[in-house]
Amino acid sequence: MRRALALARKGWGRTFPNPMVGCVVARDSKVITEGFHRCFGEAHAEAAALETCEESLAGATMYVTLEPCNHHGKTKPCTEAILNSSIKRVVIAALDPNPVASGGIGFLRSKGIQCDVGLLQSESKNLNRPFFVNIEKGRPMIALKLALTMDGRIARRDGSSKWITSMAARKRVHHLRAGYQAILVGRQTYLQDDPELTCRLVRGRDPIRVCLDEAGTLPSRLKAFREGKVLYFSSKFRLDLPSHIEQIIVSQKQGYEGLWPIALEEMKARGIISLLVEGGGVVTQFLLQRDCVDFAHLFYGPKIFGEGAVPGFRGPEERAFQLFSTQRLGDSFLLEGRFRCSQEL
Amino acid sequence: MRRALALARKGWGRTFPNPMVGCVVARDSKVITEGFHRCFGEAHAEAAALETCEESLAGATMYVTLEPCNHHGKTKPCTEAILNSSIKRVVIAALDPNPVASGGIGFLRSKGIQCDVGLLQSESKNLNRPFFVNIEKGRPMIALKLALTMDGRIARRDGSSKWITSMAARKRVHHLRAGYQAILVGRQTYLQDDPELTCRLVRGRDPIRVCLDEAGTLPSRLKAFREGKVLYFSSKFRLDLPSHIEQIIVSQKQGYEGLWPIALEEMKARGIISLLVEGGGVVTQFLLQRDCVDFAHLFYGPKIFGEGAVPGFRGPEERAFQLFSTQRLGDSFLLEGRFRCSQEL
Repeated sequence: MRRALALARKGWGRTFPNPMVGCVVARDSKVITEGFHRCFGEAHAEAAALETCEESLAGATMYVTLEPCNHHGKTKPCTEAILNSSIKRVVIAALDPNPVASGGIGFLRSKGIQCDVGLLQSESKNLNRPFFVNIEKGRPMIALKLALTMDGRIARRDGSSKWITSMAARKRVHHLRAGYQAILVGRQTYLQDDPELTCRLVRGRDPIRVCLDEAGTLPSRLKAFREGKVLYFSSKFRLDLPSHIEQIIVSQKQGYEGLWPIALEEMKARGIISLLVEGGGVVTQFLLQRDCVDFAHLFYGPKIFGEGAVPGFRGPEERAFQLFSTQRLGDSFLLEGRFRCSQEL
Repeated sequence: MRRALALARKGWGRTFPNPMVGCVVARDSKVITEGFHRCFGEAHAEAAALETCEESLAGATMYVTLEPCNHHGKTKPCTEAILNSSIKRVVIAALDPNPVASGGIGFLRSKGIQCDVGLLQSESKNLNRPFFVNIEKGRPMIALKLALTMDGRIARRDGSSKWITSMAARKRVHHLRAGYQAILVGRQTYLQDDPELTCRLVRGRDPIRVCLDEAGTLPSRLKAFREGKVLYFSSKFRLDLPSHIEQIIVSQKQGYEGLWPIALEEMKARGIISLLVEGGGVVTQFLLQRDCVDFAHLFYGPKIFGEGAVPGFRGPEERAFQLFSTQRLGDSFLLEGRFRCSQEL
């Protein structure tokens, strides 16, 4: 199953809105064939594994990171392919929460194939967090990325922040961006840093920039507005913005708080299942206060900015963090996990 | 040499004021004998390795983490033992900075033994940092330990801090304490936390508590005063303190700033070569401002205390940190390294 998860990860940034899935077929501890979901629209992991295999699979066991689908979508149901392969047992990491595609396990069992569920389940769910969050919460998954100093600051007193983290960490950020469908930063960050919000340091697809600019006052010459997809939310239509920018007009009455549900709805309508929020402090506090941060990538750089510098976490609330993983990146390090809701403290 | 360093570490907390040293003798990539400096007063690493060996060492190579000593102290010079062993080559990680004991390499070379210096040098120096700092700076090495939240706080708004870090991290702190000869916390920490400052969670020797209480107003019933060695600096002799506490009277005129050099002098006079400072914010800032922190053990726990909570790093200065190592300890993690001086920024 570890191998299947590693295979699944190869689909990073290319499968959405489908989940990343990996599959290994083995007999007597020997791998016979394997596959993964390479790209949206292409074969599912199970089909990819079975397609390329010329050996008999009679009596073999399939390890797959997600419940095989049971419906006709862009591809044929995987359950049928499994049935036709004479595989005798299927080990599944996590069940498919999508009501349209699920039911695979029931179908397989009804046909006499042994199915076991739960091996490395949480690893599989973590891998496809956006997929699960979308189905559970009915909105895109929101991930927070911050670059912090060791004293928890995201910028100096003068607003500057270059560079808190190492090149290795910045590359990792670009890798993240390639895996999220959309990206958002606060107005202050646009004004202060004028970021490109691309994944130019790695290979991959640039995320769609989502820009909440209620008053419609951000300068039109921002680097993020130059090219690539942009969803721009504002209370007035702006003629000075480049034409490739998709403008969505909202009533000025809702305020910033009212803007968010609309933005999430519009993202959802466009098939966006994951949003990476790269600060700054105001957006972070807004989302944390509403328990809307589903996952956090916190990069710490080897700096102290000192008192008076801008803190990454505003607001007086105490929070607990559930640490999933830590990784050193040059002289910086990455902590990944999620904030526990206040009730869980 | 890695093996020799691992052996050296076994002397943690028991060799001072001597350095920790490990030694491996090998021929044709086969280890013949090994040893380490187990405890102050006992055999040096080289002697320990040679003593226990009954095989011939003719033509063998010795790997030793520090230059073999060349003087008669509590033990015979290691250089002579090496000479008598027919070892033909000695590989040394770091030279001995102590003028009394050094010169070993010159002696060995004059007797025709090949000596090579520098293999894993910085690892060896890191292991015996107190030893090097004492000789270079003429004062005990000062290490800083802080337990911080992910937003760089050391206590809540109300001063409480239990518990920022995991049990695994707290055990590690006790392991550190066993390796430092003395320990110091600020007055506020004594008043707020009333810590025992022992290494009760691990096996080892409790460090000597050093207490700077210029005004002589700390309560006599503090846990740290109950038992074990205490060096208490104050401007007046206190009859209410237990008699096992060594009181050192200082003039009230010097203030806190003047107290430090005196305290360091007195520690030095008592053979103390290493001091662990466990905060709080005032002491930390005092030492950082004077570039007096030789090493830092920063423990981060999976919490956010939020704005208004007590920051670990006061003062507006920006600082860079040279990260030596990172380690996860349960849901906490440890960063070790040193602050660069302001000039190095």
